[in-house]
Order: sequence, then C-alpha cells, then structure tokens
Amino acid sequence: MSSLTPPDTYPAVVENRDGQGPAVVICEHASNAFPAEFGTLGLTEAERQAHIAWDPGALGLARGLARRLGAPLVHAPVSRLVYDCNRPPDAPGAMAAQSESYRIPGNAALSATARQRRTAAVYLPFHAGLCAVIAAALAAGRRPALITVHSFTPTWFGTPRAVELGVIREGAPGLAEVIAAIARRRTGLAVALDEPYSALDGVTHTLRLQAVPYGLDCAMLEIRNDLIATPEAEEAMSETLTPVLDEALAALARPAAEAG
Amino acid sequence: MSSLTPPDTYPAVVENRDGQGPAVVICEHASNAFPAEFGTLGLTEAERQAHIAWDPGALGLARGLARRLGAPLVHAPVSRLVYDCNRPPDAPGAMAAQSESYRIPGNAALSATARQRRTAAVYLPFHAGLCAVIAAALAAGRRPALITVHSFTPTWFGTPRAVELGVIREGAPGLAEVIAAIARRRTGLAVALDEPYSALDGVTHTLRLQAVPYGLDCAMLEIRNDLIATPEAEEAMSETLTPVLDEALAALARPAAEAG
Repeated sequence: MSSLTPPDTYPAVVENRDGQGPAVVICEHASNAFPAEFGTLGLTEAERQAHIAWDPGALGLARGLARRLGAPLVHAPVSRLVYDCNRPPDAPGAMAAQSESYRIPGNAALSATARQRRTAAVYLPFHAGLCAVIAAALAAGRRPALITVHSFTPTWFGTPRAVELGVIREGAPGLAEVIAAIARRRTGLAVALDEPYSALDGVTHTLRLQAVPYGLDCAMLEIRNDLIATPEAEEAMSETLTPVLDEALAALARPAAEAG
Repeated sequence: MSSLTPPDTYPAVVENRDGQGPAVVICEHASNAFPAEFGTLGLTEAERQAHIAWDPGALGLARGLARRLGAPLVHAPVSRLVYDCNRPPDAPGAMAAQSESYRIPGNAALSATARQRRTAAVYLPFHAGLCAVIAAALAAGRRPALITVHSFTPTWFGTPRAVELGVIREGAPGLAEVIAAIARRRTGLAVALDEPYSALDGVTHTLRLQAVPYGLDCAMLEIRNDLIATPEAEEAMSETLTPVLDEALAALARPAAEAG
C-alpha cells in the first residue's frame, strides 16, 4: 500500500534558505497531504480538503510575505491530522482524534509505537529543518524574528467570527503587540490580540520551542480564511501585511533611545 | 588533512535509548575529541587534555547515573572548544576564543561560514538527537526529567572553590531545589544552589531549549572534578548521587495532595 519504508521521513520544506531578511516565515499547517504510509485516517475526500486538515490560504500568504520580506520560509509537507507540527508529541492535538465537530477515525486509538513513528516521521524533521535555518542565521550574526502564518475558519461550531487578523503572543511582550497596533492603524482589517485563541490554548508550541530559547522576537498571525480564499486574495493580503511587518520589525530593531 | 567531507556531521551519542527510567541524562562536555576537519585549534596536547576542552569525569559519572536510573544517556562526541553544545550559535562561548586564562587561536577569527559549518556539524545533530529521545518518550506518554551532568575545576583564576556539588536551576522552581535539599541531607558533600554559576551566566541553554518548552522538570549538576578524577571515583559519586536523584524524582512525581 505504501511506497515508503518506515525509516522515511517528511522533511520541512525550506524556500529562499539564503534570504537575509529580518524574519523567518513559518507555516506548520501548509499542506493537506496524507502520505500513503498513514492512509487517509478514515476521512472522506471532502474532510481531507476541509480546514481541519490544514490552514487553507496560509501557505500562499506565507510565500508572499517571505518573498516580499526577503525571508526564508519553512513549511510542513504533511497534513496536521497526520501530525500537527505546532503541537508537542504529548498534546492530544498532535494527532487529534477530534477536531471541531469532526471525528478522525484513524487517530482514535493510536499505539505508543504509532505515535512515536508519526513523531519521528513528521515532527522531528520539521523542527530540525526549522532549527537549522535559525541556527545558520544566528551563527552568521543575524537575529531573525519568527513569524508563523495560520488561517482560521469564519465560523466555529456554527458561530461567526468577527476578527479578521489575530496576532498571538508568546514569550516576552514585543513584536505581537507592535504588529497589532500598526495593523490597526495601517489596514482596514478587524485586528485582535490573542484571538481567536492564545498561547494558553497551547497553539504557540513552535514559537516556544524555536524562538523563546534564543530570545528571538516572534508572533503568530491568524488570518480568517475567507479573506485568502484565492491566489489573488493571498497576494493582496500579503501586500497589505508586508508594510505592517516591515514597520514592526524596523521599530523593534531601532535602539530604544532612538525609538522614544 | 581531513578524512571527512564537509557534509559529515558528528551526531549525538545515545546510550540505553530504550531506558524507561524517570530521566534523560545529558552530557554536553563529555569529549575532548578534535576531529581532523577542524584541526587542533592551535592548542597543545596538554591544553587539549585540560578542563577547557571538556568536563573531565562528567561522562563517567553520567554513565553511572544513567545505568542506575535506567535512563537514556545523550552525550556530545566533540570538544566544547570546537562547538559547545550547551551554548546557542550566537553566544561567544559557542566557539570560544578565550576560556579562563587560555587563548584558543583557532577560534580567534572565525568567518560566518566557519561558524555555520561548526553549528551544522556539531550543534544541530546533538540537539536533534536529544530531541528525538525526548519526543519518543513524550509520544509514549512518559515525561522524563532532564538532568545534565557537568564538572568544574577546583580552582578558577587561582582561587579555590569550596563547593563540591552545584545544582543549577532553569525554568520553573522544582527539581533543582529538591535535589539540593536532599543532597544536603543524604550526602556529606558541600552543596550549593546556582554555584559555581547560574542560568544568568548563560550555562543552561540545553535545558532552556529541550526541557522548558515541554514543561519537563530539569536540573544541571556540577561536580568538582577532583572528586571524579578516576573511574572508581566516578562510580562512587554515581552511587552517592543516584539515591538523591531517585528520591527527588519520586517526590516530584507524587501528587501534591499526597506529598502534603
């Protein structure tokens, strides 16, 4: 059934690795691919296309931001339902058996061995790949900010969500607050800090693992997915958000005395 | 001069990988090996044997602790002077040009490319290997404590050090304080918390990177190296410290209500 042998892994995809921009752009939920080794987890084709399997629009937006910022982009090549790279291996959501109102049959009764295999196949190579990009920048004297790009669904359990751009904080105050403030001033978007969820919901694992230990600025961007539903809309949103990020990153880079 | 081609790396050495004990034991400064690729950094044979190149006695002690605790042991195969795996790539001490009163000529003027090569060759595979051990435990429902084993020199810039066992804290209060308290009660050692240095000196990078993001208990043990100067002394020290660690880990594992 599978053309892959168990030692195979699904490495992080790195684009623009040599980008010297002020950030590294990340997209953990870029893909709704289900490698043959893991099957379709008992999901229908429609379910595998739905937001539970990935963040629709997020990769296109992340690509536009990385290109405009001159930044490396690191994204995961496998559906979050196989392994959610933004969750540690002991989180229920790492290999979720339930997402919103959907059951994921293939994740309902995973053995320790199966959980370890998915962790080794997807989680470890993703984070090793991201760490390599960050460490190479640090070794060369650069301190990039980490910006992870996600999308969320316009309704959740039937309730519409008014927020259009959520900026989620992790670690010391800084970049997220500045991005939110600038986005409110420069864009027409409905901006909220720590919505539709926050670090307390366990959604900032990548930043906690890859930014905080190095003292790097970081933020998670959550865009309502109806605003990035076509390639044209993804491009337009990246044109809207790039000057916001540019201004925010420049403000943090400026010495405090000057910033006054 | 080197039999290694640049893509070669120096992976973490993992012993007792399937150990199900309550800890993972770490030893970043286990080795004073200088791979041919990097030369001898301009150091004499005596300097390459000295404490600046490694933590004498630490690997033997770490092995004894891991064996007695039934824990995996992860150690680095290369001298800290080539790359100190307990430092991030942007720390001066990652590839130190000066250590105590010693100059390290081969680290004096490293290019960005050279720093990136050492980071990719030593730092990344060490931390990827350690992360794999931790993630496998988490995926199987275990939450090991991380205990990293170091040794320090009896004199520092000519001044004798009275402390014999230092326990260094990182992250939320917990394991380090408990180990220090039990060691004071159960051993005849001169025990100190956060001596001969503390997290503020930047010496807890591994714990910050590998324990804190997962909420794992952790502590760094620093043993004065004259107390573990022979294989017999390493064994004796591991016999002394194992019941201390056993009691400390059991105390933390016990529910608070019971611990009353």
